[in-house]
Amino acid sequence: MAETFGERLSSQIDATGPLCVGIDPSAAVLNSWGRTDSVGDLEYASLRVVEAVAGTACAVKPQVAFFERFAAAGFAVLERVIAEARAAGLIVIGDAKRGDIVSSNEGYAAAWLEDASPLCVDALTVSPYVGLGALAPFVETARRTARGLFVLAATSNAEGRAIQGARSDSGERVETDILAGVAALNARRDGRGAVGVVIGATRAAPAFPLGELGGPVLVPGLGAQGAVPEDVARATAGCARASVLASVSRGVLLAGPDRAALAGAAARWRDAAASALL
Amino acid sequence: MAETFGERLSSQIDATGPLCVGIDPSAAVLNSWGRTDSVGDLEYASLRVVEAVAGTACAVKPQVAFFERFAAAGFAVLERVIAEARAAGLIVIGDAKRGDIVSSNEGYAAAWLEDASPLCVDALTVSPYVGLGALAPFVETARRTARGLFVLAATSNAEGRAIQGARSDSGERVETDILAGVAALNARRDGRGAVGVVIGATRAAPAFPLGELGGPVLVPGLGAQGAVPEDVARATAGCARASVLASVSRGVLLAGPDRAALAGAAARWRDAAASALL
Repeated sequence: MAETFGERLSSQIDATGPLCVGIDPSAAVLNSWGRTDSVGDLEYASLRVVEAVAGTACAVKPQVAFFERFAAAGFAVLERVIAEARAAGLIVIGDAKRGDIVSSNEGYAAAWLEDASPLCVDALTVSPYVGLGALAPFVETARRTARGLFVLAATSNAEGRAIQGARSDSGERVETDILAGVAALNARRDGRGAVGVVIGATRAAPAFPLGELGGPVLVPGLGAQGAVPEDVARATAGCARASVLASVSRGVLLAGPDRAALAGAAARWRDAAASALL
Repeated sequence: MAETFGERLSSQIDATGPLCVGIDPSAAVLNSWGRTDSVGDLEYASLRVVEAVAGTACAVKPQVAFFERFAAAGFAVLERVIAEARAAGLIVIGDAKRGDIVSSNEGYAAAWLEDASPLCVDALTVSPYVGLGALAPFVETARRTARGLFVLAATSNAEGRAIQGARSDSGERVETDILAGVAALNARRDGRGAVGVVIGATRAAPAFPLGELGGPVLVPGLGAQGAVPEDVARATAGCARASVLASVSRGVLLAGPDRAALAGAAARWRDAAASALL
């Protein structure tokens, strides 16, 4: 049987440490690099980050919004960034937060998780407002193609509490239901299944025992969003260590454009996260 | 002061009736037209629908997933579909269900709601799992550019109940909180504000008095998803009539590829929806 995404991710975390670098080439980042807010400089900056963090980071996570703002031309850049990152041996997580009804999710799953697509990534972030059950096309495609998902559970932003903290008919909070639902999809306990979750580092630890999640955990919020590496450890208490990816975006990108400075920032975050997660 | 999106939409509904045609060029639709599942046939079918329903429908709603599955090439088609639909006098709703934290939403808002973007639409569907507050960049941009939003409140699919029906700390259901939050953003009662909502026709009427929503309501679920025009009327009881858009996708598309057949199907759905909403 083919290796799952979670198994592949764990092997890579063991080899390289737990750092995921978010590629968020916003206008502010491009300007801080002395560049313009143009599709050419979007490509320059994104490829520079890939090149600089390969060998230091485990994964990169392009934030699709910053490519989508350049429409088709931005997606052409994203295709190249994904290809270069995969060629450099990085795990690529498409940070797209897609989520719709089943028939539309079939389209999104084809876009991001099928080998033949130029946007094919190792894993995709997905959003469950339409219900975890509606995400079935993502789950089925990820399993078939040995790719993965990270389902939004408890996001790093304060505004998310109103919905994620609401109580469903089960009496549990929505975020807890999502975690329990993901655990049922993985049906294993080693953190190496195909279906992961997103838990913000700035958030209180969820009520669900993460040792039973069965899939990896992506933890954004480090750096510009205010979390420190110890917050990542706290938010993921109980997880198998090689199933946790700590994600930093602006904390690395704002060290650019110098290649060595980017690599140095990535190495510092990687070492700090690895220590905190020991 | 510039006209709001809701004002513009109401005028157009008054003039043309309440039909929105969903452009969902899935592999199944393309095959039913005797076409291949290719980017060329995606463009052929999408432009054919625009041409056939202009003058009959009020709005078209391209489902972005079916373009995204062709990556950058699919977005180039979508750019053209949006431009042709706008040129034909149709209101264009980008059915993208985007939603992320504030900094990323700034990117998505620039992609879909700024004049300069090739993806610029009249209104965008957005997803609130990250919290209604995190959607602020969409709201601010829509107000500034006289464009609109449709925030997912109560979706047409059964799987959505678990989250949308959960009760927040206020004691209300999540979908009710979303509706109340949108009403606060519109701060008017005539259904002509910039911020609308999505309420599935297959769903029970929400507990919130829709006469106080202040913005338009997009109602998917007609046709293939099982709802009839009377369900649209029931789900939007209390709304100003010219603020309700009834959306049909496969129910029109599967009548293709013949132009007259597409136009005829659109006219039948328009008349049925208009009668039910009288």
